Amino acid sequence: MGAREVGLPDRVGGEGLPESVTIWEVGPRDGLQNESAVVPVGVKLEFLERLADAGGKVLEATSFVHPKWVPQLADAEELLAGLDRRGGVSYPVLVPNERGLDRALKASVDHIAIFASATETFARKNLNSSLDEQFAMFEPVVARARAEGLRVRGYVSMCFGDPWEGAVPREQVIGVGKRLLDMGCDQLSLGDTIGVATPGQVTALIRGFDRVDQLAVHFHDTYGQALSNTYAALLAGVRTVDSSAGGLGGCPYAESATGNLATEDLVWMLDGLGIAHGVDLDKLCDTSAWMAQRLGRPSPSRVVRALRG
Amino acid sequence: MGAREVGLPDRVGGEGLPESVTIWEVGPRDGLQNESAVVPVGVKLEFLERLADAGGKVLEATSFVHPKWVPQLADAEELLAGLDRRGGVSYPVLVPNERGLDRALKASVDHIAIFASATETFARKNLNSSLDEQFAMFEPVVARARAEGLRVRGYVSMCFGDPWEGAVPREQVIGVGKRLLDMGCDQLSLGDTIGVATPGQVTALIRGFDRVDQLAVHFHDTYGQALSNTYAALLAGVRTVDSSAGGLGGCPYAESATGNLATEDLVWMLDGLGIAHGVDLDKLCDTSAWMAQRLGRPSPSRVVRALRG
Repeated sequence: MGAREVGLPDRVGGEGLPESVTIWEVGPRDGLQNESAVVPVGVKLEFLERLADAGGKVLEATSFVHPKWVPQLADAEELLAGLDRRGGVSYPVLVPNERGLDRALKASVDHIAIFASATETFARKNLNSSLDEQFAMFEPVVARARAEGLRVRGYVSMCFGDPWEGAVPREQVIGVGKRLLDMGCDQLSLGDTIGVATPGQVTALIRGFDRVDQLAVHFHDTYGQALSNTYAALLAGVRTVDSSAGGLGGCPYAESATGNLATEDLVWMLDGLGIAHGVDLDKLCDTSAWMAQRLGRPSPSRVVRALRG
Repeated sequence: MGAREVGLPDRVGGEGLPESVTIWEVGPRDGLQNESAVVPVGVKLEFLERLADAGGKVLEATSFVHPKWVPQLADAEELLAGLDRRGGVSYPVLVPNERGLDRALKASVDHIAIFASATETFARKNLNSSLDEQFAMFEPVVARARAEGLRVRGYVSMCFGDPWEGAVPREQVIGVGKRLLDMGCDQLSLGDTIGVATPGQVTALIRGFDRVDQLAVHFHDTYGQALSNTYAALLAGVRTVDSSAGGLGGCPYAESATGNLATEDLVWMLDGLGIAHGVDLDKLCDTSAWMAQRLGRPSPSRVVRALRG
C-alpha cells in the first residue's frame, strides 16, 4: 500500500517550524552496528544505493572503530571502495581516533564524525578515558581532519540521562558540546542514548547553545519518546535530525530496546507538517522491508509495519 | 526494573503546558473491544481494579453496543454489577442509542459516551446513518442522559483522515463537534481513528473550537504519531488525553495496526514534563504486563517492553 492511499489529511505546518530539514540517515552505521547479525558488504552497498535512490542526502556509511569492538562494520574499507558516491549525497563515517582518521583519509572520506560522551562514566566505559581526557584524544583528529578539508560532526552521547549517573546536568552537556565546537566541529549531534528524554528537557538543552544551526538531534525510541522529542527540537529551531531507516539498531522486543527513531516515522511527521526533506516514503519503506527480510526480523518502524506489514 | 532506576533526567516543563492532565483510560473498552481474544469478565474486573490501584481516575469500563457487533463486551451488565466503583474514580461507558442508554441507566451508570463520525462514509459504515442523521439518533440519548444527571462525552471519529474519503475538511469536523456540544455533550474527544494525523493538523483543529477545556484528544499510533500529536494538543491547551494501558486495541504486527496510544508512553512524557496526572507508572506497567500475559502477546507499549520485557 502506498503512503498516499491511506486517507491522509492536508498538510499543515506550524509557527516556528523550519521549511526544510536535513535527515541524517544513521541506519547503515548506527543501525547495523547495533544489530546482532553481521550483514554482508554486498547487502550494505545495496542498502546505501537504495537509500540514495529514495532521496537520502546524508548517509552515515560506516565506522573506523577497531573491528575488535564493532565486528559488524569490520568491512569499512571494502565498503567504501565499492561505494558509488553520488553527487549531492554525503557519506560521513565515524572515526574514533587518529588511527581511524588514517584509515578514513586513505579511503577518501570527506566527512567524519567523532563520538564524545557527556558523562564521566560513559566516557570511561565507551572511550576508556575520563570526561576531560576525551578532548585530548579528539583534538588531533579534528585538527588534522579540518586541515585536510573534511567536515567534522561531534556526537554528544548521554545528553539527558545516563544509566549509571542518572540525570545529566545540562551545563555539563553544554560544556562538552561547546568544547567540541571550539575544537572545530561544524555540527553537534545531541544524543539521548538511552531514550529517556521528554520534550521540555530537549527544548531547554537546545536553548543552552548559542547557534541552533550547528545542532542536530539524535533520539532513541526506547520509551516511545523519540518523535515527540524531535518535534520539540524542530519547534526550537533544529534543522538536522538523525534517524535510522526502518528503526534499525536495537531489537524492539528486548529489555535493552534502544532502537533509533525510524526514518519512516520521522518522514511521516515531516510530510504532514509540509517540511521538505527530499525522501520518498514509499521507496524508503520498500528499502526497510527489504532490509528487515535480510535481518530476519520485522522492522520496528510503525509506518513500515502499517504499510508493508 | 522500576521507572526511577533507568537514569532519568530532571523534570522540565515548557511554556503553555498545563499543570495537570486527566488521563482518560480507554483500555477496558476501546482496547479490549479491538482485541481478537474475548477476555473473561473476572479478568476485566481485575484489570479495572488494578487500573484504579495504579491511580487511574477515569476508566472507560465497557460498552452497551449490541453484543452482535461487539461480542468482546457482551458482558457489560455482569461487569458493571461486579464492579467495585470507587469514590473519586469515574467509570464511563459507551452508549450507541436509546436501547443502550436504557441498559446503562439500569446498571446505574453516571457517565456515558456517544460515538459520532466526522465523515459521511464512516457514519454509514459504523452507524448505518448519514452524517446528518446521526444527530437525530444521538439527540434523545443525550437529552435523556442529561435529564437523568449523567455526564456525556461525544467521541468524534475520523477527525483528520478517512480511509474512504481521504482528507477530512476541518470545518466539517468542527461542525460535527459543535452540534454535539450544542446537544448537551460536556466534552468532545477528537479522534484520529486511523492514526494519520501530524502535529500541525492537531493544533489547527483544536484552535477551531471556542473552548479548549471541553476538548479531549484520542490518537492512534498506527504511523507512530500518537505521542507527538498529544504533545501538540497539550501545547494548544488540551487537558484531557485518551490512552490505553499497554497500548491495548489493535495488534501492532498486522497491516491494519490501529493501536491506541499506550498510557505508559504518555505517562513517561507527562512525568518528564512535570505534568501531574496521578498514575503510578510502575503499577501501571505491572498491570499491562499482567494483561499481556492473559492476551498471550507482548504489549506494544515501548515503556512496558523496556521496563517489563
